[in-house]
Amino acid sequence: MINGKKVAGIIGGMGPLATADLFTKIVNMTEAAKDQDHVHLLIDNNIDIPDRTAAILSGGEDPLPYLIASGERLTAQGADFLLLPCNTAHYFWAPLSEAVRVSVLHMPRLTALECRRRGLKRVGLLATTGTIRSGVYAAAFEGSGVELLLPDGDCAAALMHLIYDEVKAGKAPHPEALYPALGEMQRQGAEAFLLACTELPIAFAGDTAFAYIDPTELLAAEVIRQCGGKLKK
Amino acid sequence: MINGKKVAGIIGGMGPLATADLFTKIVNMTEAAKDQDHVHLLIDNNIDIPDRTAAILSGGEDPLPYLIASGERLTAQGADFLLLPCNTAHYFWAPLSEAVRVSVLHMPRLTALECRRRGLKRVGLLATTGTIRSGVYAAAFEGSGVELLLPDGDCAAALMHLIYDEVKAGKAPHPEALYPALGEMQRQGAEAFLLACTELPIAFAGDTAFAYIDPTELLAAEVIRQCGGKLKK
Repeated sequence: MINGKKVAGIIGGMGPLATADLFTKIVNMTEAAKDQDHVHLLIDNNIDIPDRTAAILSGGEDPLPYLIASGERLTAQGADFLLLPCNTAHYFWAPLSEAVRVSVLHMPRLTALECRRRGLKRVGLLATTGTIRSGVYAAAFEGSGVELLLPDGDCAAALMHLIYDEVKAGKAPHPEALYPALGEMQRQGAEAFLLACTELPIAFAGDTAFAYIDPTELLAAEVIRQCGGKLKK
Repeated sequence: MINGKKVAGIIGGMGPLATADLFTKIVNMTEAAKDQDHVHLLIDNNIDIPDRTAAILSGGEDPLPYLIASGERLTAQGADFLLLPCNTAHYFWAPLSEAVRVSVLHMPRLTALECRRRGLKRVGLLATTGTIRSGVYAAAFEGSGVELLLPDGDCAAALMHLIYDEVKAGKAPHPEALYPALGEMQRQGAEAFLLACTELPIAFAGDTAFAYIDPTELLAAEVIRQCGGKLKK
C-alpha cells in the first residue's frame, strides 16, 4: 500500500517490449480523466532473468532465484501483489508464490476462466515450446470444460521464429507465416487462438485473420480491478 | 547496481501514458538480439504525485515530497540514477537532486544540447502553461546560442486542451488545431518545435506537418547510454 492505495508489482523484462505492452494496455484500459485516476504500478524491467524456455527445455540457468529477488524488491517497495507478464515464467509460479509474502496473479488461469465465460469449447494454444511442453496451460485448463489444441511441430517452430527472431530481436514480425497452421487447427475445431506468449499480441497487433484471445489483456484487466481502478467499457 | 549492471530509476506516472511511451521508446531504441541485451529499468508509476502545473500556477499541493519519496523507493531498490518523464516536474529538479543520493537526468538541458548540436538558431517551445511560466526551458537554453520562441496565449490554451482534455483523458488527440499557431511561429523564425510535454509526442505521433524535436526520445537515448546499452543506428 502506498498513500492508502493497493499497488501492483510487475516482474518484467521477459521480454522488455512485452512488459511495455502490458503497461500500455493497463493505462489504455483504465477509465481515467486525469493522472490520479490511474493505478499505481511498480515495474522491475529485470533483463537479467535467464531465458525461461532454455531453462525448461535444455538445462539453462534457473530463473527462479531472479524471479524471487525481483519479487522481493517490489514488495519491499510497497507492492501488495505481483504478476508475471511472461506466460512461460508461470512454470515457476508455485515456488515463486511460496517464496514471496504476497499473492501472484496467474495469467493462464485467468485465460481459462475467460474462455469458459465466453462458452468456448475448443481453443488453439499459440506459445513458445517452453510454455507448451511445461504444461502450464494444460494444467490451467484442466476441469474448465474448454479443450486445448496444441500446435504441431512445424507450427511450434514457426512460433519460436516469430517470437525470438522477430519480436524479441526488434524486427518486423510476419504473423501471416502462421496462417496455414492456424487454418489446420481451425479445421480441427479451434474456435479461437490464445496468444499465450507476451510477444504474440505484439506480433499479431491489428491482425484479424482469425479470432484471437490475448492473455496480456486479461492480466491488464485483473490488475486494474485489484488496484481499485475503473475498467473502460 | 543489480547483478553488476547500472540501473535507471524512472519517477513515473506524470502521466502514466507518457511513462509507458518513454519505456517503449527505450526498448525500441536499444540494439538488442535478446532480452538480456536490454537495459535494467525500475519504474514507479506513481499516480499520486499532485499535478505539477497546478502547483506552480495556482498553489496546488506540492509534488516535491512525492517526487522525493518515489526517488528514495527507487534508489533503495537499486537505481543508480533517476529521471523524470515529465517536463513540468523539472521545476522541482534542484531540490529533488539535493534530497536524493544519486544524479537526476535533466531533460530540458539534454534538449538544449541537442538543438545546439544540430546547429539550430531558433526553436518553438510547445509545453504546458506550467512549464512555460516556470522558465525551466528558458533556463536550460540560456547560453546555448539557440533562441527559444514561446507560444502566445491562444496557442498555450490550445496546448493545455490537447494535453489535459485529450491525451491525459484518454481521448483521440487533434494536433492539427495547433497548425495556425505553429505556422505563425515558423514565420517568426522557428526552425523546429520542441514537444516539451511528455504527452505531446503521443499527440503528434505520425504528424509530419512541421519539424518536431522529442525530448522524451533524447531522454530515452541518454538512459540507454548511461546503463551501458547499445543505441540502434
